[in-house]
Amino acid sequence: MPVLELSAASPRDSTPRYVGVTKLFALLLGAEHYKTEVVESEKVSTSFFKVGDSKVELLEASDPQSPIAKFIEKRGEGIHHLAFEVADIKASMKKLKEEGFTLLNEEPKTGADNKLVCFLHPKHTTGVLVELCQDIK
Amino acid sequence: MPVLELSAASPRDSTPRYVGVTKLFALLLGAEHYKTEVVESEKVSTSFFKVGDSKVELLEASDPQSPIAKFIEKRGEGIHHLAFEVADIKASMKKLKEEGFTLLNEEPKTGADNKLVCFLHPKHTTGVLVELCQDIK
Repeated sequence: MPVLELSAASPRDSTPRYVGVTKLFALLLGAEHYKTEVVESEKVSTSFFKVGDSKVELLEASDPQSPIAKFIEKRGEGIHHLAFEVADIKASMKKLKEEGFTLLNEEPKTGADNKLVCFLHPKHTTGVLVELCQDIK
Repeated sequence: MPVLELSAASPRDSTPRYVGVTKLFALLLGAEHYKTEVVESEKVSTSFFKVGDSKVELLEASDPQSPIAKFIEKRGEGIHHLAFEVADIKASMKKLKEEGFTLLNEEPKTGADNKLVCFLHPKHTTGVLVELCQDIK
C-alpha cells in the first residue's frame, strides 16, 4: 500500500521556529517524534512523526550547500515534498518516464529511513515535488 | 486517530498541468480520485485521493478572489497545506492558542468533505500552513 510522507523544511539557524513546528506536531499527534536521522549525502537532519499509517518528516539543512538550504533560499520555509511508497521503484520510474514525467535522478539513490528514493521534476507535477521511495530489503 | 491530509494548489487556467498531477497521483495510487466537491465559500474545486488512511486533496481556484488563486499568485503552484483530524476542534484551537500559535479563524468554519476547519498562521509553524479539521456529525 502506498504510504504518504510529508516533509517540511526548516533552515539550520531557526531553532526557535523549528521547535515551534516540532512542538505543534507533538501536540496534534499526541506523541514526540519517534526517530531522528542524519543523511550525510544530502546534508540534512531529519525527524519523523507517525500519523496513522503515514508519517511526517521534518528536514533541517546541516550545511548551506544542502538542497534543503537552497530550497529555503528560493521558496522560504514550508512544506518541501510529498513521498509515495512504491513496491518496485525501478518499475515506477520507468513507467512515469514513459508517461512524460521527468526524473531528477536516473538511478534510485539512498535516502533517509532505509529507503531507495527518486524525485520527479516539479515542472510536470503542478509544482509539487514528489518522491518515490522503496524500502531497502 | 489523526489523519493527514495533503492539499496541492493548482490555478484555474492550467488544465494541462492539473491533469498532469491528477494523472500522476492516479498512476502512483492505482486509483482515480474518489470524489470531487466545490466549496462555494472558499471559491475552490477539490478532488480527493485515498492514500492508506490518509488522503491527498487537489485544490483548484474557481475564482480569482479565491484564497487558492492568491496563494498561487504569491508562492506559485505547489503543496498548499497539511491537515490534521482532531476529535474536538474547539478544544484543540483553545490549547494551541494557549501554546502561542495564532488561529486564522477564531471560530471553526465549514470546509470541504463535511468538516469543521481552522487554519493556523504559518508564522509560528515554520511556514507550514496547518489546518485542523473535525467531522461534522
